[in-house]
Amino acid sequence: MTPDEFRKHGHELVDWIATYLEGVEGRPVQAVVEPGDVRAALAEHPPTDPEPFETVMADVERVIMPGVTNWQHPNWFAYFPANTSYPSILGELLSAGLGVQGMSWVTSPACTELETLMLDWMQELLGLPERWRSTSDTGGGVLQGSASEATLVAILSARHRATNGTVNADGDTTQLVAYTTSQSHSSVEKGLRIAGIGTDRLRIVPHDDEFAMRPDALAEMIIADRGAGLVPFFVNANHGTTSSTAFDPTAHIGPICRQADVWLHVDGAMAGIAALAPEFRWVNDGLEFADSYCTNPHKWMGVNFDCTTYWTADRSSLLGALSILPEYLRSAAAESGAVIDYRDWQVPLGRRFRALKLWFAIRCDGVDAMRRMIRDHVAITQRLAARVRVDERFEIAAPHPLNLLCVRHRDGDAATDALIEAANASDAGHFTRTVLDNRSVLRISIGARTTTAAHVDAMWDALGALA
Amino acid sequence: MTPDEFRKHGHELVDWIATYLEGVEGRPVQAVVEPGDVRAALAEHPPTDPEPFETVMADVERVIMPGVTNWQHPNWFAYFPANTSYPSILGELLSAGLGVQGMSWVTSPACTELETLMLDWMQELLGLPERWRSTSDTGGGVLQGSASEATLVAILSARHRATNGTVNADGDTTQLVAYTTSQSHSSVEKGLRIAGIGTDRLRIVPHDDEFAMRPDALAEMIIADRGAGLVPFFVNANHGTTSSTAFDPTAHIGPICRQADVWLHVDGAMAGIAALAPEFRWVNDGLEFADSYCTNPHKWMGVNFDCTTYWTADRSSLLGALSILPEYLRSAAAESGAVIDYRDWQVPLGRRFRALKLWFAIRCDGVDAMRRMIRDHVAITQRLAARVRVDERFEIAAPHPLNLLCVRHRDGDAATDALIEAANASDAGHFTRTVLDNRSVLRISIGARTTTAAHVDAMWDALGALA
Repeated sequence: MTPDEFRKHGHELVDWIATYLEGVEGRPVQAVVEPGDVRAALAEHPPTDPEPFETVMADVERVIMPGVTNWQHPNWFAYFPANTSYPSILGELLSAGLGVQGMSWVTSPACTELETLMLDWMQELLGLPERWRSTSDTGGGVLQGSASEATLVAILSARHRATNGTVNADGDTTQLVAYTTSQSHSSVEKGLRIAGIGTDRLRIVPHDDEFAMRPDALAEMIIADRGAGLVPFFVNANHGTTSSTAFDPTAHIGPICRQADVWLHVDGAMAGIAALAPEFRWVNDGLEFADSYCTNPHKWMGVNFDCTTYWTADRSSLLGALSILPEYLRSAAAESGAVIDYRDWQVPLGRRFRALKLWFAIRCDGVDAMRRMIRDHVAITQRLAARVRVDERFEIAAPHPLNLLCVRHRDGDAATDALIEAANASDAGHFTRTVLDNRSVLRISIGARTTTAAHVDAMWDALGALA
Repeated sequence: MTPDEFRKHGHELVDWIATYLEGVEGRPVQAVVEPGDVRAALAEHPPTDPEPFETVMADVERVIMPGVTNWQHPNWFAYFPANTSYPSILGELLSAGLGVQGMSWVTSPACTELETLMLDWMQELLGLPERWRSTSDTGGGVLQGSASEATLVAILSARHRATNGTVNADGDTTQLVAYTTSQSHSSVEKGLRIAGIGTDRLRIVPHDDEFAMRPDALAEMIIADRGAGLVPFFVNANHGTTSSTAFDPTAHIGPICRQADVWLHVDGAMAGIAALAPEFRWVNDGLEFADSYCTNPHKWMGVNFDCTTYWTADRSSLLGALSILPEYLRSAAAESGAVIDYRDWQVPLGRRFRALKLWFAIRCDGVDAMRRMIRDHVAITQRLAARVRVDERFEIAAPHPLNLLCVRHRDGDAATDALIEAANASDAGHFTRTVLDNRSVLRISIGARTTTAAHVDAMWDALGALA
């Protein structure tokens, strides 16, 4: 493809994307294909000669689009949202066009310095502890590819601190014990497993009837494990669980972790972004005790995946856990100590210029627009809750402080499951199921950028008719 | 930003990128900033109101670009290349515009099925073992974000197989021993460390005078470790090392691993793509013995980072190592066994639609163009080697079968280091240093898409003058 062809096809593709996003509501939310359909409709073998861009885009329309589940659809109520925005898409495009690597400061200083600035901007916008800023003595922030990677990095930092770094030599993790509730995201178990902490040493701390960790139970479990000669090393607290947006009481968990010298990681992947609006700053309660924290601009802030903001108050444990310096990566700038090499803050070596999309989104759409969206989603969710509450066929299964409503059919699991299945087969929207208190629950997550009260009203009318 | 503003600014940005790439040769290769310069030139605090896109792009020109090291520059001789191409950039743009998640088949079937097809296309294009195809009984492929993540996934698969999965419960890695040479990429030590195999149980296998692993030494070390009651579980062989493009003799290492029931991972991150050209298929020698393998289309194939192709012959160990299924991720399609859920093939949960850029690059630029580029780079490197060989001030420090030449000044390390420093301070290009046989070496990596014989001739003229 020549530069002029790129100009031509690039313009066409930009227009195609704008038209797609403007018209996404006219498409089904869920892909309408059976397993194997997409592959069967594409060439089984690679072409030998170049093909025109138009031919490829024709396949996008004919084959890819029917196989795409439209996450940007206003009737997206499944999982959590993964919002894009126009400025963020342009940030991704610029990152792809520059094609630079940000593994070390020296490999593209702007990539590192803009990222550090964006983490400091986000600390300010979310009202997070000052000691997490890059300008603090011991803290700092970095963009991770996902909350899963942030959790893994937190676990590795905790593992390093609890063993005084001996784990880098002996790899002995057999005394380490981690704590979280059954409501935590699967990435906590996955990260622990990767780091050599198996389920035998993952304690499931009991939760209260609002699905929040019981600090008294945590304290008892830590004491019991210490008594047995084990080393409690890591607590994962949730600020907004995946199943029901439960908030663990970090203000009470924090002092227990401090006293026991246990690393406290707080997972605010979805809900943490709510703190952009001052009236939701309570989602940060207790964060002053956290050793590390993450939240996802790629969920509720209109910044394209992958963009997880991760902060730690203890960067020396992070660097101890992840730094390795071969000859071919040395640089005078790094050895002077004046710069950050983000490769040592993450699992991979290479990294894209991800800060651009966050910078573009904050500057071009503005934070006020993001706050408005968050406020709207929360208000719409509360309005929906009021409608559900007066319908005697349903009950609300958990507190709903933000934008996720968990609903059960009073006739039991079979009725709830049938409703979820019928809803997903209809054009009411896309929904996912979870389990709370061993009972099936319909999750209604209201967070797509274009979702309005009218969409949610129509959705609930449809579900009411299906029930 | 409205859809129409996105159209307008998107067109402008596409044009900006084309102009940047057409004119990148006129820019310095390396960023011309000191630590802190970029940040100091940007707003310390986030704006409260939206800003025009033009204002942001003015900051890109004024602040970001002087802070960018231009990896797409034809005088890029540092590290390894990280090539982009026009179709690949458009693939990234489409991925950003769609904003779908490919964590499970059901969350966007096309994202999974196109990726599986691309891995099968690549298996065919590179001439890799049939048992790695998705259609085989036990194998399959996936896109990872980086070779580092591929190596970690291989280690975790090996760890699972060697412990019969007990590691998922007891996390006991204290008997496991891994083997590789001192020439391996730092990601091998990093991945092992993450997985709980510290340096005490990482054996550095001696290499021969061409920096290739000595199979006899490996066999002896495995026997000794078994004799000591330890469990040899993982060998990393390199097909093209980072320092010098050394090839470990996998055809000889493979039978040793088979006999000892040790997982053999082959890291072909840079050099593996050479197999696109049939005359370089020798880079695959011995791969029939490998349990897993990776190579990077984002290096020498013109596909934007991040795009690492990873295959395994034993997907059940991979799935055993990484599968976790919470209620909110269940789907009927997955439970039927008819589909792949790639979240269980990688460390993170979320994943972008990365297959698009590989598909676009193969279809729109064509494989012949990629083969021509690879052949040109190898020929240019050999021509440069001939020039170096007749200059009595220099010596070549290692075999150079492909596109990396390692050069030493005969006056010793101080002269070599001074030359590297002077070269990087000049406009001859960007270079990195390594150490071979405890002596400093200038690495000349010839792999940027736009590098021609004329660039390399001019570069060597300049270095000759500086020496």
